[in-house]
Amino acid sequence: MTPSDKAYVPFVSVDHMMQLIHRVGLDALLRRLAEAIEEDFRRWPAFDKTPRVASHSPEGVIELMPTSDGEVYGFKYVNGHPKNMREGLQTVTAFGLLANVGNGYPVLLSEMTLLTALRTAAMSAVAAKHLAPKNATTMAMIGNGAQSEFQSLAMQAILGLREVRLYDIDPAATAKCAANLAGSGLRVVPCDSAEAAIEGAQILTTCTADKQYATILSDNMVGAGVHINAIGGDCPGKTELARAILERSDIFVEYPEQTRIEGELQQLPEDHPVTELWQVISGDAPGRRDAQQITLFDSVGFAIEDFSALRVIRETAMETGLYQPLDLLADPDDPRDLYGMLMRAAPSATAA
Amino acid sequence: MTPSDKAYVPFVSVDHMMQLIHRVGLDALLRRLAEAIEEDFRRWPAFDKTPRVASHSPEGVIELMPTSDGEVYGFKYVNGHPKNMREGLQTVTAFGLLANVGNGYPVLLSEMTLLTALRTAAMSAVAAKHLAPKNATTMAMIGNGAQSEFQSLAMQAILGLREVRLYDIDPAATAKCAANLAGSGLRVVPCDSAEAAIEGAQILTTCTADKQYATILSDNMVGAGVHINAIGGDCPGKTELARAILERSDIFVEYPEQTRIEGELQQLPEDHPVTELWQVISGDAPGRRDAQQITLFDSVGFAIEDFSALRVIRETAMETGLYQPLDLLADPDDPRDLYGMLMRAAPSATAA
Repeated sequence: MTPSDKAYVPFVSVDHMMQLIHRVGLDALLRRLAEAIEEDFRRWPAFDKTPRVASHSPEGVIELMPTSDGEVYGFKYVNGHPKNMREGLQTVTAFGLLANVGNGYPVLLSEMTLLTALRTAAMSAVAAKHLAPKNATTMAMIGNGAQSEFQSLAMQAILGLREVRLYDIDPAATAKCAANLAGSGLRVVPCDSAEAAIEGAQILTTCTADKQYATILSDNMVGAGVHINAIGGDCPGKTELARAILERSDIFVEYPEQTRIEGELQQLPEDHPVTELWQVISGDAPGRRDAQQITLFDSVGFAIEDFSALRVIRETAMETGLYQPLDLLADPDDPRDLYGMLMRAAPSATAA
Repeated sequence: MTPSDKAYVPFVSVDHMMQLIHRVGLDALLRRLAEAIEEDFRRWPAFDKTPRVASHSPEGVIELMPTSDGEVYGFKYVNGHPKNMREGLQTVTAFGLLANVGNGYPVLLSEMTLLTALRTAAMSAVAAKHLAPKNATTMAMIGNGAQSEFQSLAMQAILGLREVRLYDIDPAATAKCAANLAGSGLRVVPCDSAEAAIEGAQILTTCTADKQYATILSDNMVGAGVHINAIGGDCPGKTELARAILERSDIFVEYPEQTRIEGELQQLPEDHPVTELWQVISGDAPGRRDAQQITLFDSVGFAIEDFSALRVIRETAMETGLYQPLDLLADPDDPRDLYGMLMRAAPSATAA
């Protein structure tokens, strides 16, 4: 008894994902993810959108992030547990799925721990492309954890970044990031303080993990004309920026209904004006207007970005064959005869 | 390079699920599922509850059904596409996951197309055990699709049902169900009409699939003293019972916030009184009060039932070894060094 083809869902394991990244090339894949995100942001109104469904516990959060463009449905499972790192576990792990809206059958299951790091980096670079000062060449990278190399390399691949200035409260994290970026072609400057890291930087990226109201950037640290890429504030009660910075900035968001709950924006009144990034990308709203403006991408991560990433992985997995068929769906010959399928699989039935 | 144990999630494929059902025994597994559902319904207030997150399209629905008891998180992906059957596909396919709330790491991924049929049947039998007339021995099974055998066998295993009377608008479906139940020990009576099927039955189960307001049972078909187990009305715009039947019945539901949207209850005003089934099971509310009462279990399926089913499968999969380790989670030795893990997997790195 072998199941029908309909029973199998292409599955991209962590091992296949790593092979796929190397086969396509990390820079090329980051650019392809950025293009897919821009394509999908330009057709933003076509998507079903809902704030992610979060299950909070004292130690972290587990979230489901669904969306659909009417033809393809996608969702991601993702957790965020800041304490995990101290226990030798990932702060964020994830996997995701695409399905055919017409019949509900899954068409791809994929690891997304690596892919989330890549798509978050590609998303940051897309936002910076539209919002950072012209010819931004230097980024301060505050928080040198699992995302930091991907953030730096995406800014290099998509924006032409030349220098990254690293700071983390743990010098070992900075040393790890600096060593990993050594052969990248980026000038890498480890710094002893956040203040030192932001010297001369046009882009300030904050990506720290503590689940609390923190002040990674205080008001007097941020001068005119910079672009702030705030990644780490992505949960109720978890922020990274002084409120005064927000009040001096023009704030750009993915999906306001979600960002007002989860982003830096939770520090401001509910009616504080924001611009939706998709409108900047589609040309319906201005991005950076002048050289003195502080632009802030209050990034929390939205389901459409994962949808974009999953469709790129679906394409590249099919192109490269880097997936395995997973026996995920019962699919009897007669669709009403689920019981008959089960009975024909009985040990006595197979012996007959 | 082999990933750490933390990278692997136990996965129960369709093939493993079928082996597992035969190893444990279908009747024994149905009883174990019923016990788990009763245990979890008795501790109902301990669970995080939310109506499922549905993505509707003209041809069907895709839903995510999450819940958590504070220690374990679970969710199910499930679709419902009535037209699928005509295209040789399952109306309902599903898979599910359990995760550790403390660190967000998945601990089980499982097929749930088969498992959903089993848990829906076990849930129906649990409800009937508390609501059907004493010594109910005969059930009318209206709608003889993929769920019908499981419904019949669960009522036999858990309630001691002796006779099932089958009706479907498609006689081939009835013939299929009758043939599958031939060796079960149940007396099986194929009928030419719904009216004939309900003759002498104390339990009336409706389980049809059309996505529309249908009237599988009309008012004059339903006499006093029966228990109605309404499975098929589980979607906005999809019902099976005449409204007048609802008005004569005492209605029992899983989670009112969801049932008022999806169940037969959508035909009644928003404040129509209902009893939550968990309160009957825990002894906080009466079930059947007298022999003349019509009880109606307006079943739509709730996340806690899937949680119960998944924890039984987790236990039995571990007991039997009927699962495979799935390389779903990236888990580098240094949790902050996701990039380093990726780079060490490069073709040149493995050659070194």
